[in-house]
Amino acid sequence: MDFTETPSADQLETFPNPKPGRDYSIEIICPEFTSVCPKTGQPDYGTIVFTYTPGEKCVELKSLKLYLQRFRNQGIFYEQVTNRLLDDFVEASQPVRCVVVSKWTPRGGISTNVTASYTAEQTRPG
Amino acid sequence: MDFTETPSADQLETFPNPKPGRDYSIEIICPEFTSVCPKTGQPDYGTIVFTYTPGEKCVELKSLKLYLQRFRNQGIFYEQVTNRLLDDFVEASQPVRCVVVSKWTPRGGISTNVTASYTAEQTRPG
Amino acid sequence: MDFTETPSADQLETFPNPKPGRDYSIEIICPEFTSVCPKTGQPDYGTIVFTYTPGEKCVELKSLKLYLQRFRNQGIFYEQVTNRLLDDFVEASQPVRCVVVSKWTPRGGISTNVTASYTAEQTRPG
Amino acid sequence: MDFTETPSADQLETFPNPKPGRDYSIEIICPEFTSVCPKTGQPDYGTIVFTYTPGEKCVELKSLKLYLQRFRNQGIFYEQVTNRLLDDFVEASQPVRCVVVSKWTPRGGISTNVTASYTAEQTRPG
Amino acid sequence: MDFTETPSADQLETFPNPKPGRDYSIEIICPEFTSVCPKTGQPDYGTIVFTYTPGEKCVELKSLKLYLQRFRNQGIFYEQVTNRLLDDFVEASQPVRCVVVSKWTPRGGISTNVTASYTAEQTRPG
Amino acid sequence: MDFTETPSADQLETFPNPKPGRDYSIEIICPEFTSVCPKTGQPDYGTIVFTYTPGEKCVELKSLKLYLQRFRNQGIFYEQVTNRLLDDFVEASQPVRCVVVSKWTPRGGISTNVTASYTAEQTRPG
Amino acid sequence: MDFTETPSADQLETFPNPKPGRDYSIEIICPEFTSVCPKTGQPDYGTIVFTYTPGEKCVELKSLKLYLQRFRNQGIFYEQVTNRLLDDFVEASQPVRCVVVSKWTPRGGISTNVTASYTAEQTRPG
Amino acid sequence: MDFTETPSADQLETFPNPKPGRDYSIEIICPEFTSVCPKTGQPDYGTIVFTYTPGEKCVELKSLKLYLQRFRNQGIFYEQVTNRLLDDFVEASQPVRCVVVSKWTPRGGISTNVTASYTAEQTRPG
Amino acid sequence: MDFTETPSADQLETFPNPKPGRDYSIEIICPEFTSVCPKTGQPDYGTIVFTYTPGEKCVELKSLKLYLQRFRNQGIFYEQVTNRLLDDFVEASQPVRCVVVSKWTPRGGISTNVTASYTAEQTRPG
Amino acid sequence: MDFTETPSADQLETFPNPKPGRDYSIEIICPEFTSVCPKTGQPDYGTIVFTYTPGEKCVELKSLKLYLQRFRNQGIFYEQVTNRLLDDFVEASQPVRCVVVSKWTPRGGISTNVTASYTAEQTRPG
Ligand SMILES: [Ca+2]
Ligand SMILES: [Ca+2]
Ligand SMILES: [Ca+2]
Ligand SMILES: [Ca+2]
Ligand SMILES: [Ca+2]
Ligand SMILES: [Ca+2]
Ligand SMILES: [Ca+2]
Ligand SMILES: [Ca+2]
Ligand SMILES: [Ca+2]
Ligand SMILES: [Ca+2]
Ligand SMILES: [Ca+2]
Ligand SMILES: [Ca+2]
Ligand SMILES: [Ca+2]
Ligand SMILES: [Ca+2]
Ligand SMILES: [Ca+2]
Ligand SMILES: [Ca+2]
Repeated sequence: MDFTETPSADQLETFPNPKPGRDYSIEIICPEFTSVCPKTGQPDYGTIVFTYTPGEKCVELKSLKLYLQRFRNQGIFYEQVTNRLLDDFVEASQPVRCVVVSKWTPRGGISTNVTASYTAEQTRPG
Repeated sequence: MDFTETPSADQLETFPNPKPGRDYSIEIICPEFTSVCPKTGQPDYGTIVFTYTPGEKCVELKSLKLYLQRFRNQGIFYEQVTNRLLDDFVEASQPVRCVVVSKWTPRGGISTNVTASYTAEQTRPG
Repeated sequence: MDFTETPSADQLETFPNPKPGRDYSIEIICPEFTSVCPKTGQPDYGTIVFTYTPGEKCVELKSLKLYLQRFRNQGIFYEQVTNRLLDDFVEASQPVRCVVVSKWTPRGGISTNVTASYTAEQTRPG
Repeated sequence: MDFTETPSADQLETFPNPKPGRDYSIEIICPEFTSVCPKTGQPDYGTIVFTYTPGEKCVELKSLKLYLQRFRNQGIFYEQVTNRLLDDFVEASQPVRCVVVSKWTPRGGISTNVTASYTAEQTRPG
Repeated sequence: MDFTETPSADQLETFPNPKPGRDYSIEIICPEFTSVCPKTGQPDYGTIVFTYTPGEKCVELKSLKLYLQRFRNQGIFYEQVTNRLLDDFVEASQPVRCVVVSKWTPRGGISTNVTASYTAEQTRPG
Repeated sequence: MDFTETPSADQLETFPNPKPGRDYSIEIICPEFTSVCPKTGQPDYGTIVFTYTPGEKCVELKSLKLYLQRFRNQGIFYEQVTNRLLDDFVEASQPVRCVVVSKWTPRGGISTNVTASYTAEQTRPG
Repeated sequence: MDFTETPSADQLETFPNPKPGRDYSIEIICPEFTSVCPKTGQPDYGTIVFTYTPGEKCVELKSLKLYLQRFRNQGIFYEQVTNRLLDDFVEASQPVRCVVVSKWTPRGGISTNVTASYTAEQTRPG
Repeated sequence: MDFTETPSADQLETFPNPKPGRDYSIEIICPEFTSVCPKTGQPDYGTIVFTYTPGEKCVELKSLKLYLQRFRNQGIFYEQVTNRLLDDFVEASQPVRCVVVSKWTPRGGISTNVTASYTAEQTRPG
Repeated sequence: MDFTETPSADQLETFPNPKPGRDYSIEIICPEFTSVCPKTGQPDYGTIVFTYTPGEKCVELKSLKLYLQRFRNQGIFYEQVTNRLLDDFVEASQPVRCVVVSKWTPRGGISTNVTASYTAEQTRPG
Repeated sequence: MDFTETPSADQLETFPNPKPGRDYSIEIICPEFTSVCPKTGQPDYGTIVFTYTPGEKCVELKSLKLYLQRFRNQGIFYEQVTNRLLDDFVEASQPVRCVVVSKWTPRGGISTNVTASYTAEQTRPG
């Protein structure tokens, strides 16, 4: 693992949704996320949960793990990283809908959770 | 038990719904599911929960247990098996509606849950 | 206690609802239910929860306890007994609405919960 | 404390709602309630939870505590006392809405919870 | 830390919302809040939870921590402080919406939770 | 139930130990104890746990329940009542050994537990 | 299952200890025990835990389950049944040592646990 | 409450041990302790548990509560305050033995607990 | 993974203890164990916990995982497999001491745990 | 924070034990430890707990936090790092005794905990 590589949506691999005609959901719970606070230089620790309804593609779990590990030494704030994770996940897999929740361990006695979601625009028949 | 037999909807036995005129639900929690990851050859472990409203038939629990055990040495991914379990359950029992949730133990520090559901098309009076 | 007496709705005693003009609910949790599986002859153990909105009558708790004990040596399946408990409760107390949930201890590694509900037809002014 | 004094809505003191223009809610959890079963003469123990949206007045907590203690030696059934607590609370504080939940410790292996609620009639502009 | 300084909305610092075009939410859990009961002179202890959807600004966490610490020796009631925290948070950050929940440790065997919320008036196109 | 009767060791009934030759233990958990603080006049609430090795006699549970209920309106401090319960239990049943633990609900944010024990002097062969 | 058959140590089947030279322990947790209170005629419900070090024999689990089910309609007190279960287990399997714990659901707000143990007399070399 | 008064052992009031001839223990759990870190000026929050066997005197709970509140604005480290609380408790009540445990909320992702104990020197017969 | 290969101590790989002069312990928790009951042909599921003090060698975790997976289709009883796991672990790594605990999911409403331990004979200086 | 700096006992700062004459203990719980597995290159995550009795010196918490963070990108095995943490802690603070426990998140479905301890040789009077 090269922890100096920059994370990018391109690192997320996908495979064809095995049941594309059904509106079902996949929840992926990642309790070992860590990044670095750009202000204090101190590490942050959190759990990231992706919940999505696949469109044509499902996200491959090992590539997701490696992608998340690339944030290990990146300086990025809670709000930024949560929105970034959602944007990358959507770019890579183009889901019908997706929610990303990040839950962070306490700093200064205060805990923070961030929730961001995406819904694909419906393509309507012409 | 012959763990080499292929699982199939035909193995699910049913009995007549004892209260066919009432819209009620049955939840069946199966925490001892195991199959094999086709990519790594490693065993997967999960809990499967079926929640359904019976139509004419209820699913007999012992046949469900034996059916689930037949996945023990089958190579199948999370998303596939969840949709497969739903399809087989629907084929065998033709419920009014059914939800299948699979919750898998962590791999590489990441846990995955999959939720798929089915609703019978309503037959409308002509 | 005579455990050979057959359970029946007539054994459920009621008392007048002390607040008949208010739509309120009563939840009764009975974790010591036991009956016998007709197929295996083995005892089943479960928790029964009644949640109802009384009409003219409330169900008296001691008679409910004795009524439930009469299932101790009765052979009856999960789905049957849940619907039976609801039918008897409704017959005895004529509630505005009622839900019965039964939650059974695991058999063969599988747990089952059954939920059935009743709503009185609204009497409309003529 | 004089445990022989009869409880009454007049004993509930109020203070002006500090934010009368906002629809907000106050939950008060009272786990030390006790009264006496009129049928058996045995003490009952429960938790009472009031959740209300104040109108012009908020209920003062110390007076609520003393009011609840006056039920200590009163004979009163679960359903009665729950409705009585709601009626007294509403009479004393005239809330926008109020829910009272009572949760009782088990008797004869059976637990009971009662939920009653009140909503003020909306005053419409003339 | 000077615990004699009066808390004020001006002490809450903000930074630009990094994703202003998305309707997402931030939950901030502060379990170390303490103030003083004006009636008894005794300290109160509570957990404050802010949940908001940012508009143009996000609230900076360290300034929020210091702002909350300034209530340490302030005499203020539960209902007042909850509404005050909401008002200050809204004034400082002008969120799309915000909920404040305060959960207080028991006094006299009674626990209290207060929930207040704010929604910005929608600016409609002219 | 007459809550004005004074509690006394004489009210504890016993029955012959069914296995007097074996050193075994009986734990009795009573979570519904209440008495009154002599200083404040406020009710106290606690759980009493008796753990004893019977000698010739076992304590009958219903008489223990009624004995404990007689403290309902008695003014008595935590330390006193715990030692009193131990003394009465020992006087009535003459156990080989006995421990009494009382665990009280919080007052002023502080919880108290008291533990007292007794061991019979060994009668030595002459 | 014939619930009228009297339970007896003879019903406990054993098999040869697969590791007779090692001092190891087996814990068997039986949460579905029920018998009848001889005084009130009401059913009792409890969990029985056997912990033993086998000598020459191990107890076969299915026979233990059937043996315990034969108490279903037997009138027997907590202290009696606990000592009886220990005596029967020892008679049937002659363990090096054995502990039986019974934990009963509350009656009249009071819970009871009974613990009895046995240690084989050591055979000393002559 | 005057939070500027310095805490001192003299503020702990005592009352005569009601059972001086018995070696029993009293546990006092105080989850609302707060003081100030002398290094950072930030408030610390902790739970203090005293467990002692009284000699001639018991500690009066209300005076203990007020004594602990006087640390509210005192600058003192974890190790110091724990040993100080033990010294003051011993000086005021001269117990047979005493243990003080302090459990602190996390700072910088790290939690700390400190345990200190005292045993009176035994007075031996001359 | 070839689930037909027979498990054997030879499959457990070791590496040199990095701190051979210190008496320290390593606990390895394996919640995904499964084997087959030889009597019923049904799968068993359990958690295996190894706790050992290494001598010259530590057990390599990946080889332990693969070794445990080889029991997947083996018919073996609870007591046998627990003692077998201990014997193989000891043979492969020659620890100073080792405890193996197996905790099995319920069958017929009964759960079983088995605990076996080993201590190396002390080599005494000549 | 410079995550490339090598961790070393010299980075642990100490302060004089405020109560050197008393044998008391300090427990420090660090749930945010991370290092890298030298074999797989994958990050490991664990909780480290230090429990020690100080001699002349106490370990300063902020320096401990920074020292632990320096393992972030270090390749080191579970057994090594646990013994290393103990050795560094002892070298820096020369405690009377110290225990280090490391509890690691699961890998391949297996969790590992390591416990190592140190006791100072007693200096005996000459
Ligand atoms: Ca979720
Ligand atoms: Ca923190
Ligand atoms: Ca469910
Ligand atoms: Ca998983
Ligand atoms: Ca309910
Ligand atoms: Ca079940
Ligand atoms: Ca509530
Ligand atoms: Ca009860
Ligand atoms: Ca509270
Ligand atoms: Ca106990
Ligand atoms: Ca208390
Ligand atoms: Ca304690
Ligand atoms: Ca362990
Ligand atoms: Ca089992
Ligand atoms: Ca510890
Ligand atoms: Ca692990």
